[in-house]
Amino acid sequence: MYPYAEGLWAARNQWYVAGWSNEVTRTPMERWLLDEPVVFYRKEDGRIVALHGRCPHRQYPLVKGNVIGDSLECSYHGFTFGTDGACTRIPTQANIPSSCRIAAYPVAERWNWFWIWMGDPALADEALIPDHDALKLTAPGWLAVQAATHLLKTRHQLMHENLCDLSHLTFLHPGIIGVDDVAATEFEVQGEGLWFRDERAMYNQEPTGFFSDILGYHKPIDRLMSMEFFLPCLHLAAEVFLAHEKRDGEPGRELGSYRVHHAVTPATQNETHYFVAYSRDFAIDDPRVTEIINGAFAAVLQQDVDAVEALEAMLQKSGDRQFKDFLAKGDITSVKVRRSMEALIRSEQIPVANLTA
Amino acid sequence: MYPYAEGLWAARNQWYVAGWSNEVTRTPMERWLLDEPVVFYRKEDGRIVALHGRCPHRQYPLVKGNVIGDSLECSYHGFTFGTDGACTRIPTQANIPSSCRIAAYPVAERWNWFWIWMGDPALADEALIPDHDALKLTAPGWLAVQAATHLLKTRHQLMHENLCDLSHLTFLHPGIIGVDDVAATEFEVQGEGLWFRDERAMYNQEPTGFFSDILGYHKPIDRLMSMEFFLPCLHLAAEVFLAHEKRDGEPGRELGSYRVHHAVTPATQNETHYFVAYSRDFAIDDPRVTEIINGAFAAVLQQDVDAVEALEAMLQKSGDRQFKDFLAKGDITSVKVRRSMEALIRSEQIPVANLTA
Amino acid sequence: MYPYAEGLWAARNQWYVAGWSNEVTRTPMERWLLDEPVVFYRKEDGRIVALHGRCPHRQYPLVKGNVIGDSLECSYHGFTFGTDGACTRIPTQANIPSSCRIAAYPVAERWNWFWIWMGDPALADEALIPDHDALKLTAPGWLAVQAATHLLKTRHQLMHENLCDLSHLTFLHPGIIGVDDVAATEFEVQGEGLWFRDERAMYNQEPTGFFSDILGYHKPIDRLMSMEFFLPCLHLAAEVFLAHEKRDGEPGRELGSYRVHHAVTPATQNETHYFVAYSRDFAIDDPRVTEIINGAFAAVLQQDVDAVEALEAMLQKSGDRQFKDFLAKGDITSVKVRRSMEALIRSEQIPVANLTA
Repeated sequence: MYPYAEGLWAARNQWYVAGWSNEVTRTPMERWLLDEPVVFYRKEDGRIVALHGRCPHRQYPLVKGNVIGDSLECSYHGFTFGTDGACTRIPTQANIPSSCRIAAYPVAERWNWFWIWMGDPALADEALIPDHDALKLTAPGWLAVQAATHLLKTRHQLMHENLCDLSHLTFLHPGIIGVDDVAATEFEVQGEGLWFRDERAMYNQEPTGFFSDILGYHKPIDRLMSMEFFLPCLHLAAEVFLAHEKRDGEPGRELGSYRVHHAVTPATQNETHYFVAYSRDFAIDDPRVTEIINGAFAAVLQQDVDAVEALEAMLQKSGDRQFKDFLAKGDITSVKVRRSMEALIRSEQIPVANLTA
Repeated sequence: MYPYAEGLWAARNQWYVAGWSNEVTRTPMERWLLDEPVVFYRKEDGRIVALHGRCPHRQYPLVKGNVIGDSLECSYHGFTFGTDGACTRIPTQANIPSSCRIAAYPVAERWNWFWIWMGDPALADEALIPDHDALKLTAPGWLAVQAATHLLKTRHQLMHENLCDLSHLTFLHPGIIGVDDVAATEFEVQGEGLWFRDERAMYNQEPTGFFSDILGYHKPIDRLMSMEFFLPCLHLAAEVFLAHEKRDGEPGRELGSYRVHHAVTPATQNETHYFVAYSRDFAIDDPRVTEIINGAFAAVLQQDVDAVEALEAMLQKSGDRQFKDFLAKGDITSVKVRRSMEALIRSEQIPVANLTA
Repeated sequence: MYPYAEGLWAARNQWYVAGWSNEVTRTPMERWLLDEPVVFYRKEDGRIVALHGRCPHRQYPLVKGNVIGDSLECSYHGFTFGTDGACTRIPTQANIPSSCRIAAYPVAERWNWFWIWMGDPALADEALIPDHDALKLTAPGWLAVQAATHLLKTRHQLMHENLCDLSHLTFLHPGIIGVDDVAATEFEVQGEGLWFRDERAMYNQEPTGFFSDILGYHKPIDRLMSMEFFLPCLHLAAEVFLAHEKRDGEPGRELGSYRVHHAVTPATQNETHYFVAYSRDFAIDDPRVTEIINGAFAAVLQQDVDAVEALEAMLQKSGDRQFKDFLAKGDITSVKVRRSMEALIRSEQIPVANLTA
């Protein structure tokens, strides 16, 4: 499936951000993930349960069911399931075959959001989830903010590739976070497999009004900008701002640093969940700075959303033709990521039990 | 087509309820039935005409046409058709080939609604229509009410199977007509071919507020509940209420009885007509009781409509996978009906002329 | 594709009306034509540029781009294209391969609208565009009016065949331009290849209120009505009104004449652009007459739009079946045109370079 090879869409044996902690309560909540309906609710002890969302009896949506104790009762004919997915009640018969069950998915809450593993549960190693301290979501001295939630009308690939080519900042987000030099500056890519990082440094930049406002600094700055991708879900944008006042070859003092966390999770083949957080290590007690960043990021994210949805609409209206992108130097990260994602998906086309994580 | 075997959808050589008598006038009315457009109007003598809805000249919708005398003139280029479907006028030529014709369908008005036969007209025996006296729609001492009309966004099968498994009353309609014992009570199924009936008796039941109100009785009752299905269209729900006051093994006195008539007619492969009537033999002169029943049934029917449409939406969003239901004891009627419907549809895949009705 | 043979839809090596001159400015405008997105803008010298609407880099809609000088810059990653479609800038690299380019389409402005050639540019001979003087759009003594613009929810074929069978005037437009005699009058068809014309004369007609009003004449008239089709886009309806006052076999004096120009351009396989103009040689300085014609034509065109869209909806709801029209004497022009269009489309299924225009 464009821009991946024919038949390739998304990897299953992986952790994905599935939502915000405050979305899950004692009332069932449905979310489509990897083309499956999943129903979430909290147990009496507060822990999140994630079950397959179609009742095996007659395919009724379990999100309409009732949470009773730690169990979920289908509101159509009363089939009831425990937290492990096993059926515990069939109202019209006493015998409950052990084959009557639904998938239960491993879930891990981290910071303000939670991750889900939709593949083989035996492979669901929580150590594979990126370290939230290192992400600066739970690190001391950093303020982390739950910024935005979108259900994008697009395949997930388009948002990944949007985030892998930062030259789009210059043209899609001019005047806020984009300046001419983003596209013009050379960058390096490192990484392979499930992790990539590219980095560029821009010196002696007149700060945009946005940067001046949040940094409280109006003279030229240096920007050290990097983008990490923890495949297949989380992109981490990092930026360090320095005063451009080199003395004797030493860098200027640091004005501040922020991270933007973009979680991109496939819902269906043309819908994608997009959960965005950010964190910073400066002015963390100043609500005015939070407000300015919230406003600027809301505008920037909407530009991204509009772009990928316009692109998806263009692809859909264009029909089934084979698109061949004209790839340039700025696409090098995208191309590496694309190959890695394709390899990851292909590796799952052998039986799941034979995979090593 | 789920839940039937691949490629099986609906039987054609059968009578179906097509609408209410008061829907058909001298102005054409279109209704899709069995995946075909049908146009209805009344002749000068008041009888209903049912013709195929696409003009054979250029496929224009005949519902936009003009009724002239007993004929229907297409409002695009003026081709005109008699009540037998034969073309009687082609404005640009004098000669009218006999091959220029559309299908005319047998129609039978019964009580407040009318039935149509979309298959081979030679097989359209009106004796195959269920007896409306026996249905208690036209029986003396009974009051029959035209209750509801829905165009369901679902394949017809889902409403049939909804009506064939009454255990749903307990979970989908609690507090109105559903109580725990409906799902828990054993029932028997009789019938084969084009007729099935299941029956259950529930004794010593605290009446719901609804039953107390309409029966004017507040003590425990016995409920004799049955469901008949006259394939492939009409379900008849019957309930007899008795005072639970057995003396010497004799049943208590009858408090009243009602019937609910559910006509389920395929429109297209994902739309279904649903015409509902009910009748009762108690308090038939009391408009307050009619009003209470109308209100309660409107709520119950909406719960059914929401359920089957949610199920259809779930199936459609789930795509082309093969669903395998986990069938329980409560599904026995559904399974028998499913097999009978499949056999009926399969029997029509031989030439219609070779069928016996 | 009905009503053409399976797989045949529209011819590409032809001129089509693509829009009105006043729709194209320095801000890009997108229009789908022949199932491709095309982006239009004006150069600094005022001439229209037409480029393919998907950026070759990543398929982004170029309509969102910025016109800079005579060039178009994609607003996603800054790829920039000249008026010939060649890429002139890739922000992340200095080298610009000559293979990085998009199609540029020949455009010709005529009167108030412009034509586009979507096929092989080497074949785009402007002499193939109908003569706008002969069409009476630019002829002295005639007033031409830009009347209507519709994006029809239908395949283009249905509007062509609507215009090729004037018997529809009697039934679809009664009382305005349609009278019984239009369908009843014999007509002759001449032409072949890319040009057809049919003609009918109706004598001694009581004028409709519309004709009386615009001609200022209330006695019987003769109507000489013809329809020309310059394949594959432009239909020219012509009508000459004469006073019905023959003396000695001589025709009566001419009361006036008008033309209606129907440009029908395929957008996608189920959307069609419909640009309508008209011109007249009587009362050309009387704005009241213009107003009356505008009102009457708006009503007539809406009847046509409603008819072809109802027909398309009927075809789509009817699914993939093979429709076989019952063709009558009034369809003779349609049938000739249908064959010519099919031959034209088939001729392009050999390599474009081998075609002769």
